[in-house]
This record gives sequence, C-alpha cells and structure tokens, in this order.
Amino acid sequence: MKKAEPTKVAVLGASGYTGEELVRLLLRHPHAELVAVTSRQYVGKTLAEIFPRAASYSVAQTLEFSEATPEKIAGQAEIAFLALPHGVAVEFAGPLLQAGARVIDLSADFRIKNAATYREFYGNEHAAAELLRDAVYGLPEIYRDEISQARLVACPGCYPTSILLPLIPLLREKLIEPGSIIADSLSGVSGAGRKAELDYLFVECNESVRPYGVPKHRHLGEIEQELSIAGGSAITIQFTPHLVPVNRGILTTLYVTPTGAAQRIEAALHEAYATAPFVRLLGDKSLPDTKNVAGTNVIEIAWRHDPRTSRLIVMSAEDNLVKGASGQAIQCFNLMCGHAETAGLL
Amino acid sequence: MKKAEPTKVAVLGASGYTGEELVRLLLRHPHAELVAVTSRQYVGKTLAEIFPRAASYSVAQTLEFSEATPEKIAGQAEIAFLALPHGVAVEFAGPLLQAGARVIDLSADFRIKNAATYREFYGNEHAAAELLRDAVYGLPEIYRDEISQARLVACPGCYPTSILLPLIPLLREKLIEPGSIIADSLSGVSGAGRKAELDYLFVECNESVRPYGVPKHRHLGEIEQELSIAGGSAITIQFTPHLVPVNRGILTTLYVTPTGAAQRIEAALHEAYATAPFVRLLGDKSLPDTKNVAGTNVIEIAWRHDPRTSRLIVMSAEDNLVKGASGQAIQCFNLMCGHAETAGLL
Amino acid sequence: MKKAEPTKVAVLGASGYTGEELVRLLLRHPHAELVAVTSRQYVGKTLAEIFPRAASYSVAQTLEFSEATPEKIAGQAEIAFLALPHGVAVEFAGPLLQAGARVIDLSADFRIKNAATYREFYGNEHAAAELLRDAVYGLPEIYRDEISQARLVACPGCYPTSILLPLIPLLREKLIEPGSIIADSLSGVSGAGRKAELDYLFVECNESVRPYGVPKHRHLGEIEQELSIAGGSAITIQFTPHLVPVNRGILTTLYVTPTGAAQRIEAALHEAYATAPFVRLLGDKSLPDTKNVAGTNVIEIAWRHDPRTSRLIVMSAEDNLVKGASGQAIQCFNLMCGHAETAGLL
Amino acid sequence: MKKAEPTKVAVLGASGYTGEELVRLLLRHPHAELVAVTSRQYVGKTLAEIFPRAASYSVAQTLEFSEATPEKIAGQAEIAFLALPHGVAVEFAGPLLQAGARVIDLSADFRIKNAATYREFYGNEHAAAELLRDAVYGLPEIYRDEISQARLVACPGCYPTSILLPLIPLLREKLIEPGSIIADSLSGVSGAGRKAELDYLFVECNESVRPYGVPKHRHLGEIEQELSIAGGSAITIQFTPHLVPVNRGILTTLYVTPTGAAQRIEAALHEAYATAPFVRLLGDKSLPDTKNVAGTNVIEIAWRHDPRTSRLIVMSAEDNLVKGASGQAIQCFNLMCGHAETAGLL
Repeated sequence: MKKAEPTKVAVLGASGYTGEELVRLLLRHPHAELVAVTSRQYVGKTLAEIFPRAASYSVAQTLEFSEATPEKIAGQAEIAFLALPHGVAVEFAGPLLQAGARVIDLSADFRIKNAATYREFYGNEHAAAELLRDAVYGLPEIYRDEISQARLVACPGCYPTSILLPLIPLLREKLIEPGSIIADSLSGVSGAGRKAELDYLFVECNESVRPYGVPKHRHLGEIEQELSIAGGSAITIQFTPHLVPVNRGILTTLYVTPTGAAQRIEAALHEAYATAPFVRLLGDKSLPDTKNVAGTNVIEIAWRHDPRTSRLIVMSAEDNLVKGASGQAIQCFNLMCGHAETAGLL
Repeated sequence: MKKAEPTKVAVLGASGYTGEELVRLLLRHPHAELVAVTSRQYVGKTLAEIFPRAASYSVAQTLEFSEATPEKIAGQAEIAFLALPHGVAVEFAGPLLQAGARVIDLSADFRIKNAATYREFYGNEHAAAELLRDAVYGLPEIYRDEISQARLVACPGCYPTSILLPLIPLLREKLIEPGSIIADSLSGVSGAGRKAELDYLFVECNESVRPYGVPKHRHLGEIEQELSIAGGSAITIQFTPHLVPVNRGILTTLYVTPTGAAQRIEAALHEAYATAPFVRLLGDKSLPDTKNVAGTNVIEIAWRHDPRTSRLIVMSAEDNLVKGASGQAIQCFNLMCGHAETAGLL
Repeated sequence: MKKAEPTKVAVLGASGYTGEELVRLLLRHPHAELVAVTSRQYVGKTLAEIFPRAASYSVAQTLEFSEATPEKIAGQAEIAFLALPHGVAVEFAGPLLQAGARVIDLSADFRIKNAATYREFYGNEHAAAELLRDAVYGLPEIYRDEISQARLVACPGCYPTSILLPLIPLLREKLIEPGSIIADSLSGVSGAGRKAELDYLFVECNESVRPYGVPKHRHLGEIEQELSIAGGSAITIQFTPHLVPVNRGILTTLYVTPTGAAQRIEAALHEAYATAPFVRLLGDKSLPDTKNVAGTNVIEIAWRHDPRTSRLIVMSAEDNLVKGASGQAIQCFNLMCGHAETAGLL
Repeated sequence: MKKAEPTKVAVLGASGYTGEELVRLLLRHPHAELVAVTSRQYVGKTLAEIFPRAASYSVAQTLEFSEATPEKIAGQAEIAFLALPHGVAVEFAGPLLQAGARVIDLSADFRIKNAATYREFYGNEHAAAELLRDAVYGLPEIYRDEISQARLVACPGCYPTSILLPLIPLLREKLIEPGSIIADSLSGVSGAGRKAELDYLFVECNESVRPYGVPKHRHLGEIEQELSIAGGSAITIQFTPHLVPVNRGILTTLYVTPTGAAQRIEAALHEAYATAPFVRLLGDKSLPDTKNVAGTNVIEIAWRHDPRTSRLIVMSAEDNLVKGASGQAIQCFNLMCGHAETAGLL
C-alpha cells in the first residue's frame, strides 16, 4: 500500500535535539515532504540557518520556522510531529486532531494511560485526559497494528525503549519473576535536551560519571505501565539512570531472576523479534556497545545466564535520539502511512 | 611516631598507569625518598624522559629506570612497591621479603587467601602460596592495624575498593541480605592499563559505552572473599563492569535488600568511617560524581532507600588509579611507616 | 547517463576506518553492489561480524572477507576501491587495471606525479612509476572531467583536501601570495588509522592536545604539487598538524597574504564552487565547526580579512573519513560511472 | 625571608572555574590561610557544599561564602584575590587597596596600561584609570621583581601567557621579525568560564573543533602591549583561538620569521628561563602536550626550524586554569610574600 505521493508532514517545536534529529530524518525520507516547522525562538529563520547540518537539502534553504496555529498546520500537513516540551504538547494535540491531522507526539504527555499515574509522576492534572484513551504507545515492535491505525501516537521515552524491548517478550511468556527487575541505565548527555543549564556544560559532564534521579525517575510511570501489560499484573521495578560523557547512546543492564530455562528465554526473544528490522539480537556471541548503534534506529540486545547467582543479565544499547526518540517516531510514521517500516531509516 | 628521615622506597615495574601514578605520588610525598624504579623497557631512561609530568621534581631528572634484582632493591629501599603485571609480581615478592624489604603489591597476586579460589579466577596454580598466609589485604579502612604490622600488603583492585567500602559495614552489622547484592560498575579506560590493544584505542572508546567481562570478572574472587569475611558466611554477588569514556574514575551502583532500618544503615556507615580521612559520606544530600574525586584518594558514598521496591541503593565514586590503586598503596605505606595516614595524599 | 544496473564494486583491505566507512557508504549506495571485500586478517568472516554497524544490510550477513587475487576481483567487479596501506596498494593497482577493472585508490601511492618527490616524502622508490602518468588526483571539485574518464584515481589525503579546496581558486586567480601560506590543521584521532599503538590509546588522546610531524609531514608532497599546479609555479607552504580528542573531523586554519581585493576573493570562491554540491561557503556569516560536517561529505569554508594585519584567514572543516577519504572516493565513483555526484552521499 | 605565620588571604567571586581552582590551591598552600570567600549566589554555603573536591580540607567544612565589603575583607586578609568578572573587579580593587590590602586580580581589568587601548578592546571607559599606572602585569618570569613589590597585580589571560613566554625572549634579543608573528591557539572549554550558555553545553562541544573570535579577540590588547614592550616598538600580531573538547589546556603554535641563527634562538630561551621553575623547555627533543601539564603550573615550550620555509615554529602547552590563571596568581602571591616561588604549586 505504498503511496505514490510523499506524505506532507510538519514538525512543531523543532529547536531541541530530538526536533533537529527528526528534521534531519524527514529531509532524507523518500516518502515525506516537510512543509512546516515551528519554533517560537527561531521564527523567520530557515532550517539551514539553525541546523547547519541540514543545509545540504534544498528545502532547508527556504523553509522557515513559523509560529503557525494547529489549524494552519493541519491545513498543510497530514501528519504533525510534536517535539514540544512535556506539558506543551498536550495543548497542541487536541486542536491538531480536531482539524484533521494525525499526531505523533515525542513528549511524555500521552504515554501514560491512567490519569492518576500521570499525576503521580508529573505532578499535575492531565490537561486533555479525554485523549489518553485514543493514544497508542508508539513502540512499533509491540504495537505495530495499533500504530498503523492510530490518530495519536505517544512515542516512548528513551530509557523505556531500552528497557521494554528486552523485557516484554520475557514477561509475556512468564519467563522471569516480575518483582526481580532491576534496570541500570547509562545515558549520553543529549538525553538532557538542549538546555542552558550548568549541569550539562561540557566541563561538568566531561570526565564525569554520575547517577541522578534516584530512586524515582519520571520514566518509571510508562515503563511499569507497559511491563504490567506484558506481565498481566502490576509490576514495580528498580531503575537508576546515570549520565556518562557521550553525545548519544543509552546502555541498559537489566538484572532479573529467570523462571524459565535458558533456551526458552532465547527462543522468546528470537520469536518476538524474528521480523523486527531494528532489533539486533546478539545472544551470547557479543555484547552491546552504543557506538555500534549511534546514528541508527537499531537496538542491540544481548543476554547472559549467571550460573553462580542464577540470575539472567540482559543488556541493550540504542541511540537515545534515534531508536529512543526521533527514529522510532519515523518508524511509527512509516506504519501509519503504509510505507516500508525501514523507509528513510537505513 | 613520625620518622625524622624519609623512608627509602623503590617502585618495580613503573611503566603503566598505576606505576606512573605511584611515582607521581611518591615524588611529592614529604616522607618518602624514591631511590629506585625498574622497568625492562625503559632501562637507562630517566623518570623525566618517560613521565613528562614528573619532570618538575629534581630527582626525576637523574633517577634512571633499571633492571635491578630483588636483592639489590632490598639493599637500597626499605619498602618496595610492585606495579608489575599479575603473575610477575609473585616472582619478586618472595626474594624481596627474604632480602629484608617490606612489600606493597598492587597486582592481584596476593589478594586471594585461598589457593583454590586463586586457581578458579586466575586459571593457574599460585606460584608462592606459602606467602598468602602472611599477606594483608590493603584496605586501610578495614585492616588498619594489620597493615601497620604487615611485611606484605596486597592492595585491593579498583572495582573491589568501590564495592567493599560501602558494603562491609552493612554486612558486619547484618543490615542487608547477603544474597541480594548486585554491583553495577562503570570504569574509566585507564583501568585497562597502558596496553596497545585495539579495544582501548581512542576511537574505539570515545562515544562508546559497553559492558564487558559478563558474568564472571576476575575481581569477584577478592570481592566475595572480603564480603564473606565481613558477613560471616560465604557470599556470592552479581557484578557487571562497564567501560565508559573517561580517563579516570569508577562509579559503582549497588542494589541490596536491607534487613535493618534506614537509621541503622546510616549509623553503621557513619560509625565505620567516622575517622576515615578518605571516605566522604554523602548520605542522602547529594550523589557521587567521579569528577569530584578524580586525582584524589577520596571515595564518595551515598545511599537511598526506595520505598516502592524496599531496596537500598548504595553508590560510590573513586579514582581507579588513586583510591583504587596507587593512592591506596600510599595510604598503606603511611600506616606501615607510622606516618600520618593522609601524608602526601592531600 | 544513469545506468540501469548497479555497478559491481570491490573493496580491498577493508579492515581500517576508511575501509569500514567505504563499506558503509557502498552498502547504502543506490547504484553500487558490493560483491567482494578483502582483508588478510578477517578471511572467512562476514561483514556483519566485523562491522556491527553494517549488520542492518542483508548483504553484510553473507558477504565474507576473502584474500582474492586482483584477477579474481577484476572478474567480479567493475571498480575496485583500494583501502590498503601505503606501499601495498601499489602492488594491486597494476594487476587490477590489467585485468580490466578501474581502480579508486585511497592510499598515498598514486597521488604524487613526480617519482623524485615521491621518494623525498616516502623514502623509497615508487614501485609502479609507469602508472603515475595515468593516475588522476581524485579531487572532484577540481578534476571533475578527468575523474570521469579515469581508469586510476588517487584519492587525496584528508589534510590535503582541507587545504586545497580553500586555496586552489585563490591561487588560480593570483589573489594570494604563494609564499605566504601557513596551514594549521587539527585532526580527530581516526586520522591515525586503526593501529594498536600506545600513542592512540584513549587515555593518551583524551584530554590531550598536541602537534606532531613538525615541520615536514608527508602530506606536504601532494599539497604542494596541487597548489603549484593551481598557482602556476613551485609553491612551498608551512603545515602543522595537531591531534585533538574527537573521533572525526579536520579543522584547518589558513593564513595567507592577499594580493587581490576582498570582493575578488569572495567572488573567486563563489564562482569556483557555484555548482559543487559538497562545498558549503560560509563567507563571513559563521565559522566552520567539525560537528556540522561529521558523517557527511561536506566541507565548510569561511574567511575573514584582518584589517589590522592585512592578512586573510581562511578556515575549513570536513570529516576526515568522509570528504577527507571514503566519501570523496564515492564522489569519484559517481563521476566515473555517470551517476549523480551526490548519489549515496546525502 | 620566609614568614613564620601563614598569610591571610581572601578570594572574591569564587564561583567560577578560576575561583574554584584558586580556592583548591590556597587550601593546600603551606603558607596561606584562607579567611574569606565571597560570592553573591552562594552566600551562607560552605566551601565544601559548593566545591565537593575541597571537602577534604577542614576549613572548607566551616568557611562560608559571604558578601563582605572590601573594607571588611581588608580587615581580615592581607591579600585579596579577585576572581570576579571583567568590569566588576575594577570596582573592588580601589577600596581594597585603600583599606590596606594588596590585590591580585585575575580579571582583565588592570592588564592594559593604556586607557585608550582598554577602550578599544573592551568597549567602555576604564572605571579606575588612575590605578593602571600602579598595576603590575603578573607574569612572574618577566616581572619577578616588580611583582614582589606590587600592591596591585594584574594576572595575565590564559592565551597571553601561552604566547608571551615563548616570544618575549626572542623579541628582546631581536631574533624574530616582529611583523611576522602568527599565533594559533587551541583552548579547552573551561576557558569559557562556568556560564550556562548553549555554546558550551557538552553536546555542542564534544566532537566539535571550531575557531571563534576571528580576527580580533580581546586578549590581543594585552598580548600586543607586552610584545611591544619586549620588542621595543609597536607590534601587531595575528591570533586565532579555537575551542577543542578538553576540560583544561591551551596549546599554542606560533609561526615567526627568525632573524637570528638557530643557536641564538635556543640560547635566548635557555638563558631567559634558566632559573624559572615552571618553564619546561623541550627544545627539539619532544613536542608539547596539554596532558603533560594539566593540573600543574608548568608551561612546556618547544621549537623547530623549518629549512624549507625558513620559518621558526614555537609551540607551548599550559593548563589554562593553572599557569594560565590561578596557579600563576599563586606564583605572584609567593613572590609578593617572599615565599619560595614554587610553594604550594608542586
């Protein structure tokens, strides 16, 4: 069902790292035509002026940032990507949907299905709780069909993607103890966004390794929601994020107690991702490395059984800006438009 | 009991990163006089030629690397530091001791008390098992008195130091479940030593985050030995090392199940390290960061109780070359010679 | 004249950084079909095993490294890329040409037209001097037509590219004093190749900035050859390379004494590169930054007139592995096959 | 003339990188007693809270940041270090001097002797021009005696130090052409200060190499002033700073046309710095590397004659925060108080 015409798309709030990555991926996408980008701070500037790397694409020389209304955007674009901050995206989604656009939201605003859970993790009432029911969690390997039909896709956070893809097949098959899950994650600094804060200055991050957000990071809300769905009961996990001095990449090490045999665990992962173009199962042959996935939409997954402790260690590596954000959004876009899942992503 | 005369010391095998750091620390030590350094590859070169950073010390302009025998070394120096590779140090320790020198070994050769455990983790028979009985594990905060009297000190590995100091007080007081311990460690690249291997090239490490040695790293031998002593029974732990692109630093995140109350845990750590000059307890006020300890002999320790999972998370940060190796060796040296524990380390 | 069938290509010596980059670019090239890769050390391994990043391409799962003879390669591929070390490429070029293949050499073996100059800079007699006459210097912006017809293309070095593109138009128009040229270049560590040498270990390069090869770097041979051709007389320049801790990128700052007016200099550069898809002239609006070109085939060029000193400062930034090596080789390939110059490079 | 009692010192504006480094150096200085630190933003916080690395010194546990007036500071401290921003230091110097303190200013406010030159480079009238006459430029290797007697020392900028020390002996001896000087400098990111600006975020600096401030950087004012004094006539130079991804370090490459013989150049440098404890002359044996001086007060200087171009290349490496700022300030302090020049700096 590949369409002859490229799909017209808009990116709202394209001034941060995920916005820039989204623009870059859309400019080289064979089936997308970028018709609008918005950013309050860059109104009137061309894409090429703000993102020098985009300057090689002719459309970047002419397309200017605007402050277009949702209605105007919906008149131009079939699909609107929201690269807006949490709490801002929620204001745009409703009007865009009402005006006829389909929405792919990269913020956290529509990831949590339960308004009370949203309040627990984000500290305020959800501003458009009526839309939560329709939002589809944008993890293509898990919700391929739902995403295809969705009008509102809530793309997962970067940490959740690195934790959910390794664990969901194991929970679905009841191969691990749900209460045993410990996720230890290391993130590159682009995960903090393009924010002028002292904590993310070069000198503060270079030659620094540090945990943060211990013990209750906001991403736990969506992680536990999706793990609980997979496991069939409420799951609470341990999660510790760390900041490490790389631009891009998340490396997650998961510690779980297996209840099934090693072969069944291996089989569950291979079956789950047999046809997934972006999941690279390393098994016990090698170990993941963020440098092998940086700039790509691939997630690497490896696992080891420790006979000394009877634990299973599962490790994953992804690019937080691609598979953890903008690449995954494009993957959703491809499913929504009937393009090949890998279009524009190889 | 501070001595009037500086103690004469020698460094054997001073060509790697720990050797260089040891030399640097000894050159600025107010009570040490470096009288000999050995290195097969640098014979005849001065310290200043091989270690440009040492060139500011006048002795570095004249002191040349030699291939002196243990007997000759023992004739010149009261204390010999062994910065030799594992398996080589063991050949030098006996002759040095016999010739009258006291030995501070930075290799792994004398850390394991049980020859069978040594064989399990290092793959060969111990070449001087008769010395194991006399070797003292060089963790000053735990074995202060034994080190003072020791003739042979086996300095702990870098990972073990970062795991043992946070956990030993909790195990001694039976405040955590011994079987629950998971240690997730991140190490800077100097931990791999100065070896010309592709894996440690700049381009292979920069922008890379990766686990390695999963699931059975050699350091487990000494870690479990010391935890078992503290806990009073055999303890097996989970340990995953990762390589991150910094020169120096180890950040360890420990996951344990507490059996005692939060206040007792806090009290146990504060009591254990009340007079320890190099242990900085952050409690729940801040989180450790390798950049706050790089170049120093300090280990930072923080902890958080997670009410959602009932787990305790303990985190530590140290410089792998200082508190994790050469600084700790100097700390042992100070104890052995009756100097202030902090001499030359502030 | 775009061809219907993809062009069959081989890469010889694909084990270093330029080889890996070449493979990556060829795998995603719409008009290239990679049919053979050679590497003595990796014989029998698949591309996916050696280059994890290539594993997303199906051909990488099956194509194995071989030690095929030039004759066999020429039987399979129309074009052979040589990513072999200097001094080795020269042994393969002749047999490949004789067997009917066209050759794109990324080594230094065929860049110098004069065998005496070759001897001066490389220290030995040229092993196939009879081929030098036919070799075309693979700088597409300068030798577009010659490359299209060439049977043997000698791709420029990374430093030369960053120096020649900014200066050639100014020398052709006699707008700068030939004797005044000073080139100060900063290179990322991948420029040193994938060699297991202490100097390029992470710990030796990270937090290090250093000059090297002062004052006579080998690249001077080809730089001065091409500048002399452009200027119409023998030109000698000053050139100092430095190593800086980034994976990719060369930043060159050029100091010259202008003889023409500022407008003429600006006009010369704009005219020279009006239709060059990979030259981004920043003029006086912004300054080059390697992060804006990393992973792309673009070279950024900016310039400033200093009224205080009457000098002209010209600055360029490129990715040493792409525009400085493998991307430029693909650009040559496109010209040789009649593909769009940008095919596979956007 | 070593004093028995430590000298009481204060640091004003100790919240940036140079302030922190100054505090660190003063805490470990054997003859300094830090009695006051000021910072508007940190009033009431202890040194240990703001600078975790200082926490090992007991005074850091109790000494709090204040907003003390110059008069109060002068009542407590004999010497006041100003680590305040440019344009702010000038307001404090006068009152401090009048109240009897001696002042070591690390800002640019008193470096330029000529008020018109100050206006040219800093854009505003000097707020205390009457003090310029008394200020001594704090380059100890050049102004040792004047600094000893000074009441107001203006510490050089980081770039100037790296350029002046290599060139002043050559200009004094008329061994180079004054009009030929080109200085190409590479600086670590701490040189930009601890400022929450997008340009200095980790992601913007890591994997980035870029020139800035072309062609007229503010430091030119003091550089040309001091070169002109050394050369005996007005000198204008070319200077291009670049930002490279290291925390600390400046590497400067100087291109000059020699007028004297190679031996005279070598002799001039050796004579000038025969007794300078922090100038390490590498001659033609090795090349400078910022990693060999990071964290130290040493400047490395090397040189090469290029017979092909008849130019002289002089290269220097220093730590911008130590020899380029706070270490040099301590060196001045030592001279002012009659301490050994190296006190607290080895």
